[in-house]
Amino acid sequence: MDLMERLNWRYACKKMDPTKKVAEDTVARIVEAARLAPTSSGLQPFEVLVITNHPLREKIQAIAWNQGMVTDSSHLLVFAAWDDYTPERINMMFDLTNEIRGFKNEGWEAYRQQLLAGYPPRGPEINFQHAARQCYIAMTTATLQAAFEGVDTTPMEGFDPDALDEILDLRAQHLRSVLMLPLGYREADKDWLVNLPKVRRATDQFARRID
Amino acid sequence: MDLMERLNWRYACKKMDPTKKVAEDTVARIVEAARLAPTSSGLQPFEVLVITNHPLREKIQAIAWNQGMVTDSSHLLVFAAWDDYTPERINMMFDLTNEIRGFKNEGWEAYRQQLLAGYPPRGPEINFQHAARQCYIAMTTATLQAAFEGVDTTPMEGFDPDALDEILDLRAQHLRSVLMLPLGYREADKDWLVNLPKVRRATDQFARRID
Repeated sequence: MDLMERLNWRYACKKMDPTKKVAEDTVARIVEAARLAPTSSGLQPFEVLVITNHPLREKIQAIAWNQGMVTDSSHLLVFAAWDDYTPERINMMFDLTNEIRGFKNEGWEAYRQQLLAGYPPRGPEINFQHAARQCYIAMTTATLQAAFEGVDTTPMEGFDPDALDEILDLRAQHLRSVLMLPLGYREADKDWLVNLPKVRRATDQFARRID
Repeated sequence: MDLMERLNWRYACKKMDPTKKVAEDTVARIVEAARLAPTSSGLQPFEVLVITNHPLREKIQAIAWNQGMVTDSSHLLVFAAWDDYTPERINMMFDLTNEIRGFKNEGWEAYRQQLLAGYPPRGPEINFQHAARQCYIAMTTATLQAAFEGVDTTPMEGFDPDALDEILDLRAQHLRSVLMLPLGYREADKDWLVNLPKVRRATDQFARRID
């Protein structure tokens, strides 16, 4: 199994088997992959919610175009970005860095000051949009780890983020929902997409050399 | 080699060895991984530029905080998002889908109409921001494929995107730069970051269960 083979195996699963559960140690490795994902300046400006609660997922399904993966999946991941880069959050990650590395570094402290001076004044909307982009890195990493585990996923933007924020009470926690990622196992005979060929632009329509 | 091991191996390389080149078939697989990455509605709303030209990379370095990876790397990838979702672009991907699958599907055609009605009227700024997020998925996939190839990368937001657009004449092509990804091989004895431990929040500060 290499990554290319897994990229060809995976697809946006449209029908998951509600009777099949993903083992908890597998879910833990998928979350761990998201945790290890790179982010801008290493700030990890998001949290991951791992939801199994069924009544809650029914509420979420109702604000997600009624898509079945929300409730048929074994676990539903929600990637929720920081609503802003505050000095507290920036300092938390730089302090953690010093703690883990066991020393203070002049260049790193200068970079802390640069972010402290640059990020908070930009305002919450620009900062949230930047944090939201980082969620895509972690979601992708989780999706690919899942593919190595033989677990199907559906990367989902298709929901009302304001409504999801309300259902999960995210704004009070200074978070805003960005992506959902149901984890489960495909119910192949009920999935219209599973046997269709993957559609991508040809390489010469996608990538270009400048030598 | 599994993904988790590769995630722990990789880091944002700060010093690449300018004498070491990445083999072209390896670069091709990294670009292919980006091409196979999932995107919202399968639109692949971006292009990847693969730049080796040195004078051009010197110009880019000057608008990228003078970071050495831009010129020391073997190949510089630039992820450039569509500046807008136009009817032409949406139709291009839906037509391609029909062509590859060899049939028209009523549900898929209804979805085309939904996007045609919904996306273009939102305006170029919202559409570009959405397309830009998709670049993060492809950049992540390329980064992880590179890690499996033993190739170092540096995911980079740290450049002046307007200046890069001008250098690469992207706006005339209805593209806007989002991310750069230098590919190369670490020059470990000159890289301050290479031997420092990876810093991530503890799992209980990162992920939360709702059961």
